[in-house]
Amino acid sequence: MTIRTPDWAKDAIYYQIFPDRFAKSERVAKPSNLQTWGATPTFNGFMGGDLLGVVEKLDHLVELGVNAIYFNPIFSSASNHRYHTYDYFEIDPILGGNAAFKEMLDAAHARGIRVLLDGVLNHSSRGFFQFNHLMECGSESPYVDWFHIHGWPVNAFASESPNYAAWWGIPALPKFNTDTPAVREYLWRVGEYWLEMGIDGWRLDVPNEIDDDEFWREFRRRCLAVNPDCYIVGELWHDAHRWLQGDQFDAQMNYNFTRATLGFFIGDNMDQTDTHRTGYGHMATLNGQQFLGELDRINNHLYAQQIVLAQMNMLGSHDTPRVMTIAKCDVQGVKLMYLSQMTNPGAPNVYYGDEIGLTGGHDPYCRGAFPWDSAETWNTDLLASLKSYIALRNDCVALRRGSFVPIFADDDVVAYGRAFEGEYVLTVFNRSNRKRTVALNWPDAPTRWDGALEDQGMQFDLSKKLTLAGRSGRVFIGRK
Amino acid sequence: MTIRTPDWAKDAIYYQIFPDRFAKSERVAKPSNLQTWGATPTFNGFMGGDLLGVVEKLDHLVELGVNAIYFNPIFSSASNHRYHTYDYFEIDPILGGNAAFKEMLDAAHARGIRVLLDGVLNHSSRGFFQFNHLMECGSESPYVDWFHIHGWPVNAFASESPNYAAWWGIPALPKFNTDTPAVREYLWRVGEYWLEMGIDGWRLDVPNEIDDDEFWREFRRRCLAVNPDCYIVGELWHDAHRWLQGDQFDAQMNYNFTRATLGFFIGDNMDQTDTHRTGYGHMATLNGQQFLGELDRINNHLYAQQIVLAQMNMLGSHDTPRVMTIAKCDVQGVKLMYLSQMTNPGAPNVYYGDEIGLTGGHDPYCRGAFPWDSAETWNTDLLASLKSYIALRNDCVALRRGSFVPIFADDDVVAYGRAFEGEYVLTVFNRSNRKRTVALNWPDAPTRWDGALEDQGMQFDLSKKLTLAGRSGRVFIGRK
Repeated sequence: MTIRTPDWAKDAIYYQIFPDRFAKSERVAKPSNLQTWGATPTFNGFMGGDLLGVVEKLDHLVELGVNAIYFNPIFSSASNHRYHTYDYFEIDPILGGNAAFKEMLDAAHARGIRVLLDGVLNHSSRGFFQFNHLMECGSESPYVDWFHIHGWPVNAFASESPNYAAWWGIPALPKFNTDTPAVREYLWRVGEYWLEMGIDGWRLDVPNEIDDDEFWREFRRRCLAVNPDCYIVGELWHDAHRWLQGDQFDAQMNYNFTRATLGFFIGDNMDQTDTHRTGYGHMATLNGQQFLGELDRINNHLYAQQIVLAQMNMLGSHDTPRVMTIAKCDVQGVKLMYLSQMTNPGAPNVYYGDEIGLTGGHDPYCRGAFPWDSAETWNTDLLASLKSYIALRNDCVALRRGSFVPIFADDDVVAYGRAFEGEYVLTVFNRSNRKRTVALNWPDAPTRWDGALEDQGMQFDLSKKLTLAGRSGRVFIGRK
Repeated sequence: MTIRTPDWAKDAIYYQIFPDRFAKSERVAKPSNLQTWGATPTFNGFMGGDLLGVVEKLDHLVELGVNAIYFNPIFSSASNHRYHTYDYFEIDPILGGNAAFKEMLDAAHARGIRVLLDGVLNHSSRGFFQFNHLMECGSESPYVDWFHIHGWPVNAFASESPNYAAWWGIPALPKFNTDTPAVREYLWRVGEYWLEMGIDGWRLDVPNEIDDDEFWREFRRRCLAVNPDCYIVGELWHDAHRWLQGDQFDAQMNYNFTRATLGFFIGDNMDQTDTHRTGYGHMATLNGQQFLGELDRINNHLYAQQIVLAQMNMLGSHDTPRVMTIAKCDVQGVKLMYLSQMTNPGAPNVYYGDEIGLTGGHDPYCRGAFPWDSAETWNTDLLASLKSYIALRNDCVALRRGSFVPIFADDDVVAYGRAFEGEYVLTVFNRSNRKRTVALNWPDAPTRWDGALEDQGMQFDLSKKLTLAGRSGRVFIGRK
């Protein structure tokens, strides 16, 4: 089949928002027992971020250069991360409910910012209507076929060993029985409903655990029937070609890119204390050849070009320690990673707060409150660099739509090109602390190039050797 | 204060619908595991009645002479009676959800039928969002002040002795903390919301258990601000003058009337096997003097006239054995009770199925499915009599708006009058099996009367003695 992903997704710069921690508006009434904004995150505590808070901080996103938001779950849920869905058709009241959602969506769209929601369709929560029904009514409930129940009464709160299928055996997360037609219809309807409400796409939580391609094919058909420009990205931590054939998802959360980038730019300096508890696993240190080889593999061999250009490339998420923490606060290393992220195929995603250098270990510590009221703690140097990289990507169509051309690699230096309709962009990195001088060869490319970023205003002849300072990256733009 | 109850409520003939059991439409998709329609009711089983089923049976109500429906709860709930509210702002999906509600409400209103909903505001269910939040998040939940929690973790499914306040100590029914401002606002908002959606009033479940007059005063203010004709009736089984001063409720579910009527017409023949488990308690046999005295007390002394005319008078409900069962299938006795109900002050309420003589003991047996497909089982004689009594009430404004005048009582014979703006209605009962002849004296009343019901077309002079057959009732209408 012809693979087609949305055009806008190739131009997207995402900003990922963990709603309880991004911003809190005075306009949303709150329940009483909240943690102080900025307190150490706990597994169960709420700080009270909300969607009107997001509205009030949209300028920050616009200034950053962002044009899309990926929201961690916002449907009503008895958890601060809201992956325990209570009602798929209601926005959580602490977030401001459906009215705040509408205001946020309108405000975002008015600024050209698209919105992805997080679809958690593999499992619900113990509070979900049909599951609660089974707890209350037992085997006489009409909903006995909505979950995989192995015995009665359902022991959802009475045992650590649930007598029903649950995600990773966690009692709080009963797995849907997606063989039941009514369940399939219900979940497909969730997909349709929020697109009808105006969202631009879905991030799907652990979609591989609904091991049923036809379920996801129909999900895609339903979604695209509502909005042909709908974007669907799966939380798939490794090779995802099964789902990226054009009939299921447009993209994956591209942790392959994350691992490779961390492995090259941070390498042996990574703090991997907790990464084995995440989808990262243990990340290998990569030399330049390995890094470029991995980029070539994921950009040129693993998936069709339409998929590659629509991938969601992150340096971290709510599911990982923050990039600054894994990088042990190597700010320059993180800058190089951002530059790599902004110059690679695939839509970059910035996890809220990473742009100002927030640190935080594994869940729940990677979900701290955004320190709006203590701007003196922000890493404004990092923020300025990131803004310039995002602006570069927004300026260069080749970075968003172009081919990926491996150019050069040795242990510490890597160069790759991007080319699209006469625009060429060359990116070169030196991860070592030593100055390096290299000769680069990109057949058929222009010979005269304009420097970008710190090299802006200068012209370069790439037939001559190129010198890079220690731990630096340089970008050149050519046209013909 | 001036007491004012809605004019329409004085003219109302209610029909009480237990939604899971009244009627089931093909147009509402159903979950798989339903009991067969007409099966023996169980505590947890569902038969799948719905609100489009109600729409399809409205002709039956119109033919009966009904002009209002009181619905047992219809909000989403994991129980067949739906007193365990899951979401106060959603109609239960098995009932057809909000869309079916809208269709039902429009169809009822189009036929001049008003709609009361059942407001269960004292307690929620374990599945209710904020309570589920406490189960999932424990003491870190923002909602710790929504319920009365005595210890953590909340042991809602782990013990028969809940560590939180619950209705009658039943773990499934956590009691709201109505001292918390957010809870008060929430519950008041429920009241407003469904009036905004178009309902005509509220029946309030166990309102005495929210022991807070100001809570109910504000509830009334909020409701009347939306609909000044809103009717509010409380489930109050005994003397209710505390709540019937004009600033809280318009009426009570007038089980005082029920007890008196059963006590006189059925008396020693009552099956009281299960009545001690209901709000009835043990019901005394009454002679005629006692019966008339009780009617005089509840109609002329206990409450203001505006309240008396708006009372909801039933012969049974979802909370009692069916009247036919308590009467041990004494059909004539039940007919006399209906005639008394239709000739007394207070709006009569007919519990679904009672009109065709359904039997059924204490919950769950009083909640059987309406046998639409086996009309041969209906007691059509009873139905015809009831229709004629309802028609009589609908024809005579004095029955709906008139004063209540005790006329005569001995052990077995009771007579009372109703008078309103020149219309007089005299009702006389002989509960004994023997023919009785009595002399009646109603000073200032007309002397020439027209017979009603079986006496229709005949004229009577009440200055002469009146003869009544055994176990009979007669009604006469006079004007001056």
